[in-house]
Amino acid sequence: MSREMVIGVDLGGTHMRTALVDRTGNILRRQKAASGISFGVEQTTRRLVAECQTMLGAAGKFAGSVVGIGLGVAGKVDHRRGWVVFSPNLPAMKNYPFGPELEKTLGLPVLLENDANAFGIGETWIGAGRSIHNWVGLTLGTGVGGCLILGGKLWNGDDLGFVGEIGHMIVSPGGPRCTCGLDGCLEAHASGKALLEFVNAAALRGDLSGGPLFELWNEGKLNAPGVYRCSVVGDPIAKSAFARMGWALGLALANLFVVLGIHNAIIGGGVSAGWDQFIEPLGRSLAEHSKMLVVEDAVVQRSSLGDDAALLGAARLALQHYSSVPSYAC
Amino acid sequence: MSREMVIGVDLGGTHMRTALVDRTGNILRRQKAASGISFGVEQTTRRLVAECQTMLGAAGKFAGSVVGIGLGVAGKVDHRRGWVVFSPNLPAMKNYPFGPELEKTLGLPVLLENDANAFGIGETWIGAGRSIHNWVGLTLGTGVGGCLILGGKLWNGDDLGFVGEIGHMIVSPGGPRCTCGLDGCLEAHASGKALLEFVNAAALRGDLSGGPLFELWNEGKLNAPGVYRCSVVGDPIAKSAFARMGWALGLALANLFVVLGIHNAIIGGGVSAGWDQFIEPLGRSLAEHSKMLVVEDAVVQRSSLGDDAALLGAARLALQHYSSVPSYAC
Repeated sequence: MSREMVIGVDLGGTHMRTALVDRTGNILRRQKAASGISFGVEQTTRRLVAECQTMLGAAGKFAGSVVGIGLGVAGKVDHRRGWVVFSPNLPAMKNYPFGPELEKTLGLPVLLENDANAFGIGETWIGAGRSIHNWVGLTLGTGVGGCLILGGKLWNGDDLGFVGEIGHMIVSPGGPRCTCGLDGCLEAHASGKALLEFVNAAALRGDLSGGPLFELWNEGKLNAPGVYRCSVVGDPIAKSAFARMGWALGLALANLFVVLGIHNAIIGGGVSAGWDQFIEPLGRSLAEHSKMLVVEDAVVQRSSLGDDAALLGAARLALQHYSSVPSYAC
Repeated sequence: MSREMVIGVDLGGTHMRTALVDRTGNILRRQKAASGISFGVEQTTRRLVAECQTMLGAAGKFAGSVVGIGLGVAGKVDHRRGWVVFSPNLPAMKNYPFGPELEKTLGLPVLLENDANAFGIGETWIGAGRSIHNWVGLTLGTGVGGCLILGGKLWNGDDLGFVGEIGHMIVSPGGPRCTCGLDGCLEAHASGKALLEFVNAAALRGDLSGGPLFELWNEGKLNAPGVYRCSVVGDPIAKSAFARMGWALGLALANLFVVLGIHNAIIGGGVSAGWDQFIEPLGRSLAEHSKMLVVEDAVVQRSSLGDDAALLGAARLALQHYSSVPSYAC
């Protein structure tokens, strides 16, 4: 009998990550390609199909057979039907039967889940959340995703198509405009996009007075890693951008901890690479905004699976649904 | 065999309500006495013991025997040990073994629970929450209490001694000072105390220009029902106080709904009697601060048990723990 495998996909606002994953969570092969807010439905689908076909070809080399595909997508998804309802970072996919379309082309069952929920499933399966009963998950990327793991399981709420959308908690009413259209969301403070907008606003105010951050901005090369590097070397605007991020994250976590009566959070996503620049202001803000919680008991840690968390979670879902061997709930 | 009964108590910041309750939730006798932030431990205990003794006497008339006492208390409680850890409205009770002390005096087992959690258990047992799987509970009184009912059960989180403390979510960073010491909590906008503070600040600014609200304030007779009556007859300051309350409640619910992926809330507590003055601004705020949620799906309703919700919930807990007849989880 051939070795059962799945393809896990993390389709974010900037990249699509694809991996061939076995039943124990080993990644046998991985790939990364560009995605983007300007991509149309066809372009995204074509690219993703090509990525999956490469994985299907590779499976043979490992004497494996792919039994299904798990796909984590940023935004609101209808996971029962496999539709993307609304994705702020993939606007062309609005109300699109992405799962069924991929199934038709690839001839394999496809399971869709919100990417931050996939992150939560991944970290609970073989990551930092393995031994934590209740925790809040945050993914910092182009946007800010979130999930709740309650009683060791992904919390699905009333199955409304959205859940754990911590990025769209309003932390500062009347604050910066979010991609979703509301003002003051966590995402508008703590995402990669928010970092860039903060620097951009400073530049337009004339507050960038030379230096490497100004250079990046002036050359149109500003990105989150660039802001991070400038923060590390002490640029005050870059440092303020990360301080605001930490402040907003600390406030959101303080609010969630007091309501949920819990004290664990796991933070992942590409922009969490800036950890050393925002964790201190995060801790300060969490302490300042907490009263019931004994702040020393709070545990805010980094994802241990890094960029692989969401695709491993998506793979785990596909294994649970399509494997012939029964698996256990994560 | 005598009919098993319990005593349910709701010990709030202003009143202590006591009731004799049978296994099906019938209230056979009820009483209400004053409590207060200035009461010492002895005074509160003496008064509560007297209330319970009256109930014990009454039980005989119904051919009943009291098997235990359930006590809902505002604040942080250690329900395993029966201690009050910290109660903003009963500061003298800090780290006080209230349950064991009452047990000693009354010779009956006593169970302590946070009063808003007791509210949630009551409404789930025989109230508005009976057929709702997941909901957010809010109690508007001297303070603002909260609870989460998830999967039909009271959510206890990590058993940290606080949970569902929605009143201490910060909805407006840097906003009005809360009793807890933080700035901008929901409680500092949506409690009875917040209504009075709003009017008081307006008076000190000289914004109360005659009329019944000014009279109340001037005579030192300002209370939440008074602010309500003035709002009903169109006093602009009283209306603004309730508008701010509705705004803050709508924002807090929008944040909770998007994170929990649910769409039901039940609001109780004495100050929820001002419903017609805050529900419209609440609905507007919920709509303005929601994006993922289809706002028409949101259901925000009033407690159906009114002032009895918390004492019935406390009674239910006592029945579950001390009755000789097995009962079913609520």
